[in-house]
Amino acid sequence: MRDLALSKAYQLIEPGPVVLLATAHRGRANVMTMSWHMMVEFEPPLIGCVVSEANYSFAALRATRECVIGVPAAGLVRKVVAVGNCSGRDIDKFSAFGLTARPANRVAAPLIADCFANLECRIADTKLVGKYDLFILEVVKAWSDPAQTKRATIHHRGFGSFVLDGRPITLKSTMR
Amino acid sequence: MRDLALSKAYQLIEPGPVVLLATAHRGRANVMTMSWHMMVEFEPPLIGCVVSEANYSFAALRATRECVIGVPAAGLVRKVVAVGNCSGRDIDKFSAFGLTARPANRVAAPLIADCFANLECRIADTKLVGKYDLFILEVVKAWSDPAQTKRATIHHRGFGSFVLDGRPITLKSTMR
Repeated sequence: MRDLALSKAYQLIEPGPVVLLATAHRGRANVMTMSWHMMVEFEPPLIGCVVSEANYSFAALRATRECVIGVPAAGLVRKVVAVGNCSGRDIDKFSAFGLTARPANRVAAPLIADCFANLECRIADTKLVGKYDLFILEVVKAWSDPAQTKRATIHHRGFGSFVLDGRPITLKSTMR
Repeated sequence: MRDLALSKAYQLIEPGPVVLLATAHRGRANVMTMSWHMMVEFEPPLIGCVVSEANYSFAALRATRECVIGVPAAGLVRKVVAVGNCSGRDIDKFSAFGLTARPANRVAAPLIADCFANLECRIADTKLVGKYDLFILEVVKAWSDPAQTKRATIHHRGFGSFVLDGRPITLKSTMR
């Protein structure tokens, strides 16, 4: 994993990939699958995301105010779906699915080494947590794995239906 | 355009497509390109999105509390990028880019007939507008165009770089 400029973090989240969200609470790491997220600000990078109170990760995120968002490539899709179909209440998902946790730099939650990019995040705002389970996170450190060159991501369409990134296209644009 | 069940609206937004957001204010329709959005609730469908105060659409959205979100297929990518690279302050974008506005059912903002799906939205919450330009919208009516069968969507990676939906994949999953 190498440093990724914080100014580039939005390029990972804006395209809407299915991501993994890792937490660590009371000495126990956990990971969930998430698709309800968006960019809120470029710099410092702010991410809005919904982590339902029904998710086991909710309590860990709220208590520790930290997490890691990992971006998995398409090759991990089966593991990503499996992670989303069980709860950290019942099992150690890192161990059950052979995911590799590595120490992060700025937060206690682990990096997910299997992901091609990882974003260390701290909670920046909880104003909409009570009503919508909507957290505003600040990315405080970003990582990219240069060894992972296959970076097609996964998009969720509901009920086991996914679509993988296909053809890239470049057009003249002044939009950042 | 045919009715789309509100319970299926999330399947359009969750995969993170670039969308168009149409408003109508003081007798004038406008449209912008947006990628900072996420689902917040299944039913009624709630969508979080960031419409910057710098965007001409911001004032129309805040004043009228209504908009339409259209989901364009990959074939529209050049128009979608062109819409994002100019301002309704200067031109009538529907006319300039040959987009077809049609009357919506529940809101004054127009449907974008060129899009394969349209979501009529009303503002549900403005608590985070002051700080982050973050609106919570409720989808009050959804439309799908059965004549448009090519539904690969567009994802933005920054600075003119896009990726189009590729291979669909279906896996066993209990996730809605």
